[in-house]
Amino acid sequence: MTNTAINLRNKLAAFSEHWSPRVVAEMNDYQFKLAKLQGEFVWHAHADTDEVFIVLDGAMTLEFRDKIVPLAAGEMYVVPKGVEHRPVAVQECCVMLVEPRGVVNTGDTGGAYTAPNDVWV
Amino acid sequence: MTNTAINLRNKLAAFSEHWSPRVVAEMNDYQFKLAKLQGEFVWHAHADTDEVFIVLDGAMTLEFRDKIVPLAAGEMYVVPKGVEHRPVAVQECCVMLVEPRGVVNTGDTGGAYTAPNDVWV
Repeated sequence: MTNTAINLRNKLAAFSEHWSPRVVAEMNDYQFKLAKLQGEFVWHAHADTDEVFIVLDGAMTLEFRDKIVPLAAGEMYVVPKGVEHRPVAVQECCVMLVEPRGVVNTGDTGGAYTAPNDVWV
Repeated sequence: MTNTAINLRNKLAAFSEHWSPRVVAEMNDYQFKLAKLQGEFVWHAHADTDEVFIVLDGAMTLEFRDKIVPLAAGEMYVVPKGVEHRPVAVQECCVMLVEPRGVVNTGDTGGAYTAPNDVWV
């Protein structure tokens, strides 16, 4: 139990890699992660869990097979479990992800964009 | 599964009561709630769960029996389960809370500040 708050801007300043989520906090068996997105991610789904995107800075879109949802800073979206999605950011976008500990960023798809899990910043 | 993002500023503009959390999203069995804080809340604990505070606007302090943690916009804190705490905001402060569905705002303490649960905005 720390003596100070977690400052999200300071945490974002501490890494620069895209598509590489960094854990900043845990609540029960869930993790809060920061990520910097730029470009087009891979289509994937998380079979066992919903996934929350909260945009902290910039803008992005969440592409689904049947629609596209734009998100700007101060907006959030819950991707339901099992639903294929693809995050896209034309310019760098900083987001907070909330999901259970152990969720892999590329879900069931894998591939080159798969980031190491449980990396803290 | 909605077609649009959840805009936190718009949601905050839709209610004015203090100490009365409003649900804006669910992820698995967890809820994301917005709340407006002003004044001194009651000392309480949540026996069964951690609780996350994310400050969206303004500033507040989380008082614990052995320390005080200041939080400003863009900062977050995880109150561990079972730990007594008291939120205090000198001026109005807007926060997002993340916790399992069913958590009562006054925890085990109860009393006049106990808000209806599962109220959406």
